Amino acid sequence: MSFTAQILTLYPEMFPGPLGVSLAGRALAEGTWACEPVQIRDFATDKHKSVDDTPAGGGAGMVLRADVLARAVDHALELHPALPVLAMTPRGAPMTQARVRSLAAGPGVTILCGRFEGFDERLFEGRPIEQVSMGDIVLSGGEIGAFMLLDACIRLLPGVMGAASSGVEESFENDLLEYPQYTRPPEWEGRMIPEVLRSGDHAKIAAWRKRRAEDDTRLRRPDLWERYRSARD
Amino acid sequence: MSFTAQILTLYPEMFPGPLGVSLAGRALAEGTWACEPVQIRDFATDKHKSVDDTPAGGGAGMVLRADVLARAVDHALELHPALPVLAMTPRGAPMTQARVRSLAAGPGVTILCGRFEGFDERLFEGRPIEQVSMGDIVLSGGEIGAFMLLDACIRLLPGVMGAASSGVEESFENDLLEYPQYTRPPEWEGRMIPEVLRSGDHAKIAAWRKRRAEDDTRLRRPDLWERYRSARD
Repeated sequence: MSFTAQILTLYPEMFPGPLGVSLAGRALAEGTWACEPVQIRDFATDKHKSVDDTPAGGGAGMVLRADVLARAVDHALELHPALPVLAMTPRGAPMTQARVRSLAAGPGVTILCGRFEGFDERLFEGRPIEQVSMGDIVLSGGEIGAFMLLDACIRLLPGVMGAASSGVEESFENDLLEYPQYTRPPEWEGRMIPEVLRSGDHAKIAAWRKRRAEDDTRLRRPDLWERYRSARD
Repeated sequence: MSFTAQILTLYPEMFPGPLGVSLAGRALAEGTWACEPVQIRDFATDKHKSVDDTPAGGGAGMVLRADVLARAVDHALELHPALPVLAMTPRGAPMTQARVRSLAAGPGVTILCGRFEGFDERLFEGRPIEQVSMGDIVLSGGEIGAFMLLDACIRLLPGVMGAASSGVEESFENDLLEYPQYTRPPEWEGRMIPEVLRSGDHAKIAAWRKRRAEDDTRLRRPDLWERYRSARD
């Protein structure tokens, strides 16, 4: 069973793009996932193939039309009814590693990429669409967010990372950052690898890593630290 | 004065990739920004061109070596001493729109893209590197995060969006989400554009938009809402 990435975009030529290289690219070539971009403009009905219009009430930029976008979403739902539809928008809920894991465990995802000043809000009242944000910064369009979401999902698909790297000890699992890593050489510019990591004592190493993950999370990400602590109280 | 994006990566062929299309692509063609990928592997010194090794203390995956990466960073700093060096890592500080604005106002950025289990921690003790995270999800590498950061910066460069869209009324400015947008047709599937937006009363429209931005931020992003409120107390 392959993971299907159906992407509604004004720039289908952007895909698979960076996801055609490295880990994700090998997985694509092996059929672990399928990349199916859909051109939103094909669902415009006027002779100019308009997908956007000026904002009601005034303001800069252009807004994506609810009627055109709904036709594109309906087409996507018809092709792949089992895929959840996610729209990339800064007004959406912040994406989490837990949501990435649940998507990666399912049949795939349909991603709606915005451009310009975003979508006509009525689209979200009229269609079952989950609004998501990939970070608190503003992008020129949803395509870059789609790469990010798909990359995060694809690496978790069976066989992509290999059995050894299950990803269970990495950042954001259990609301902790990952502990710091070290590798050869043992001394670099006068800096040594911490002695405990060279001790061979697995219990001590595990305890040190847990403490460093906790310390670094508390110092660097007080927001995650609060969630971690309250989940354990 | 052009904005320079210097990217240290094991996959230089990924660049400019999606940033060669649309807004960012036009800006690249016009010389508004320059894309300079650098192959990290060129700074390995053994005959296998090794850039990584197994984690000290055990564990899955591979860690990027401090000595090799430091040589790549030193080369980048020599070529472009004025550019801040940012490393993409889930252990970093979450990127903000304010930091994007400050980067876009400067000469450019050097981005260090991680892969595998990340960097040998001593690299960050030995070199002036800002660790940043593009979201609370784990990617297969820093390249996708680099696209995101660069796209967010490039759209803010002079001339890229055009004078009308200065970006001052969008999400995350002042810690508020943007208000919802509407456009033609006035009625779609029985849903009307809110009457106030068709009133032509600019003061009323501005007040409605501000209230909706506040309401939606409070409901959807209590974390941003707290920052917004405390900045105004």
